[in-house]
Amino acid sequence: MKVAKFGGSSVANGNQIEKIGAIIKSDPERKFVIVSAPGKRHQDDTKMTDLLIQLGNIAFQDKPYMDNLNVIMNRFSEIVEELRISPSILDDIKNNIQEIINNNESDQMKMDALKSIGEDSSAKLVSEYLKTIGLNARYLNPKDAGIIVSNEPGNAQILPESFSELYKLRQYEEIAVIPGFFGFTKEGKLMTFSRGGSDITGSIVAAGIKAKLYENFTDVDSVYTVNPSIVSNPKEITTLTYKEMRELSYAGFSVFHDEALIPAFQQKIPVCIKNTNNPDAPGTMIISEKNKSRKCVVGIASSKGFSSLYVSKYLMNREVGFGRKLLQILEKESISFEHAPSGIDEMSVIIRNSQLSAAKEEVIVNRIKEELHPDRITFHRDLAMIMIVGEGIVSTLGIAQKATTALTDAHVNIEMINQGSSEVSIMFGIQSEGLNRAIPSLYNAFFGS
Amino acid sequence: MKVAKFGGSSVANGNQIEKIGAIIKSDPERKFVIVSAPGKRHQDDTKMTDLLIQLGNIAFQDKPYMDNLNVIMNRFSEIVEELRISPSILDDIKNNIQEIINNNESDQMKMDALKSIGEDSSAKLVSEYLKTIGLNARYLNPKDAGIIVSNEPGNAQILPESFSELYKLRQYEEIAVIPGFFGFTKEGKLMTFSRGGSDITGSIVAAGIKAKLYENFTDVDSVYTVNPSIVSNPKEITTLTYKEMRELSYAGFSVFHDEALIPAFQQKIPVCIKNTNNPDAPGTMIISEKNKSRKCVVGIASSKGFSSLYVSKYLMNREVGFGRKLLQILEKESISFEHAPSGIDEMSVIIRNSQLSAAKEEVIVNRIKEELHPDRITFHRDLAMIMIVGEGIVSTLGIAQKATTALTDAHVNIEMINQGSSEVSIMFGIQSEGLNRAIPSLYNAFFGS
Repeated sequence: MKVAKFGGSSVANGNQIEKIGAIIKSDPERKFVIVSAPGKRHQDDTKMTDLLIQLGNIAFQDKPYMDNLNVIMNRFSEIVEELRISPSILDDIKNNIQEIINNNESDQMKMDALKSIGEDSSAKLVSEYLKTIGLNARYLNPKDAGIIVSNEPGNAQILPESFSELYKLRQYEEIAVIPGFFGFTKEGKLMTFSRGGSDITGSIVAAGIKAKLYENFTDVDSVYTVNPSIVSNPKEITTLTYKEMRELSYAGFSVFHDEALIPAFQQKIPVCIKNTNNPDAPGTMIISEKNKSRKCVVGIASSKGFSSLYVSKYLMNREVGFGRKLLQILEKESISFEHAPSGIDEMSVIIRNSQLSAAKEEVIVNRIKEELHPDRITFHRDLAMIMIVGEGIVSTLGIAQKATTALTDAHVNIEMINQGSSEVSIMFGIQSEGLNRAIPSLYNAFFGS
Repeated sequence: MKVAKFGGSSVANGNQIEKIGAIIKSDPERKFVIVSAPGKRHQDDTKMTDLLIQLGNIAFQDKPYMDNLNVIMNRFSEIVEELRISPSILDDIKNNIQEIINNNESDQMKMDALKSIGEDSSAKLVSEYLKTIGLNARYLNPKDAGIIVSNEPGNAQILPESFSELYKLRQYEEIAVIPGFFGFTKEGKLMTFSRGGSDITGSIVAAGIKAKLYENFTDVDSVYTVNPSIVSNPKEITTLTYKEMRELSYAGFSVFHDEALIPAFQQKIPVCIKNTNNPDAPGTMIISEKNKSRKCVVGIASSKGFSSLYVSKYLMNREVGFGRKLLQILEKESISFEHAPSGIDEMSVIIRNSQLSAAKEEVIVNRIKEELHPDRITFHRDLAMIMIVGEGIVSTLGIAQKATTALTDAHVNIEMINQGSSEVSIMFGIQSEGLNRAIPSLYNAFFGS
């Protein structure tokens, strides 16, 4: 029994939904289908969810919203025509939207309901289409499926009782098509998950029905060993462990939001990343235990946009609480940090640039000077992080040597190395300008022929 | 105007004190001489300070102590004979000791006074000897010199008013011979510094008189680039910065206690490590600012005897306060730690073995399991730390590559790397068993021909 989740690009138009049909038909184990809202059909297109948010922002202020509603209905209508399914579904969608706009709930609750229309309608369209190609499919509302969540609009959390409810779905004869992104409270109120929430639904359903496999269909053939926008045609990753996936996601890999996978991970359900447009490609398997025979380094992730705050003070290590006080100053400015490596008389704090502003930087520097009297304090901007990831990296001879040689050969100075805190990765900090030299050189060292 | 401090081996017998005489005579700028208590004359000898502590432990319990006193007096008597100075000094020393034993102070105060006899007598012997070779020398008691300290027997701290008092000594005609290791409270009570306290006195006097140079005479020609017990005849270090010295001291270099130098460092007084037995050797200069033209890596320090505690928990980085709670558990067991590098879902804490016991280890592991529910917790014993030290290391291309290549060539697996938290060092953690392969290979890479 498999759960197949399809992302926004897989339901963007009729042609894409036909591909879903072929995929489901090709494997009778695919009994659960989770769908996102229609995504972009081309670079400049707008995602359905964003259209719905725009509609809400206008309608909830009692402004005329018919133009916005028409744009939305036209997109659904196009899909209905392309798939040659009954247009009665369109009235159903339109009624749903108008009911939400006109009801007496708070704007926040109404927006959550409106946002869910994208996924909900996708599920209805897909299930209707699957029937037309001879599959025994049905739309299954998250309430009927048993997806019970906390009362937190826009950030709902799954409640544990959901899983036993979901397990009962195993008895279904039909192929269940479930909209992603939302659930219902015990009181029956609709709540959406955080953004990327269709991945969450897929993972919850896979955990609940104890699926043999959770297939996550996207628009790439696999997870790649390195960012394809830096190295062209990089090798594909065939298997990854959860831990490796998490380290890769952390530093810039964005196949999906790794936290969404938690429910599946907790049940040790293997996850497969596949391509709707090329379903015969093997994809990337994400598993809980590593395969011993495999090559040690599986991928190289990288990300720009970090800064480091460096503070030195002679005899810092005798000054009890220095580090804590420094971190408290950052906390006061609502800055969360990534790493805080410390030396004897020195401390660095690595921060994502998105956490900083010129004003905050000034406040921080002044407070540190006044309260901690450092010998020196500097901000180092334009830092990029590189993660070399692989289970067993810590116990394999020569990995650090290979990496540092590759960086030196590329004339990239290494600002930071953090090895040993993680068993599955080595982290390097370099100047951002060197990233496009560093990554190809590292790729060549670890994956070149 | 220079301050020359002589360690225990330099005053261990008459022959050594004659060398001091020659050193002082050779440079009229050497106007201040600080001396330790007589040290070991040979491997199995006992240091004077330890003999005095033994004496106190017996005498303060009203047990017969004459045998112990005789051993002490015989050592002083031998030196007097060797130097052919007046034996009247011996009565003076003996009276001092018996006065201390018989007075009504607390045992703690009496022990402090007794411990100071070693340095005090050394200073008297040396000043008498200097006179016999035609130098205008005089013994100067720390009270008369103006070394004013806090009321903490065995751990006295210098008070700031001392420095202006000491500055007045610049007007002295004579060469002042001052005993190291102790000072007096404002109320006139004798207090010793922590062990290694003669270095503290030297540094205080150098700062107080604003010396041109503080010479620290020991029994080695210089600070070496690497531990001479691992690599034979290693290269000498000609100049070091304070920061470099501190990093080297931290991981096993033990030329002197680096904190003793703080008063001298604060006044930016250069320090020279020299050999009493080979005073013509240039020694090692320790200065505040680096010499730009110098080679980047100045030394490689190493030390066995570390352990690492490794804790991993999936999604640790979302669990607010995980790291703090872990460190609090260690704090509860009075364990201070050296480094605590953290990854996304993992954290390591590096601890000196001396901080641990099997019982404490069990308590810690159990508490972490109960309170933090980690996925995995392991203790990794037999860890050695290697520090590659040099100002400018962070901005020099290829240092990490050179080091990791040297370690890999020596078949040493790298457990940890910490680069970037310090601007003057890279730290490596390896298994202790590999240290004797690692250090020669690193030495060769950085200092080989």
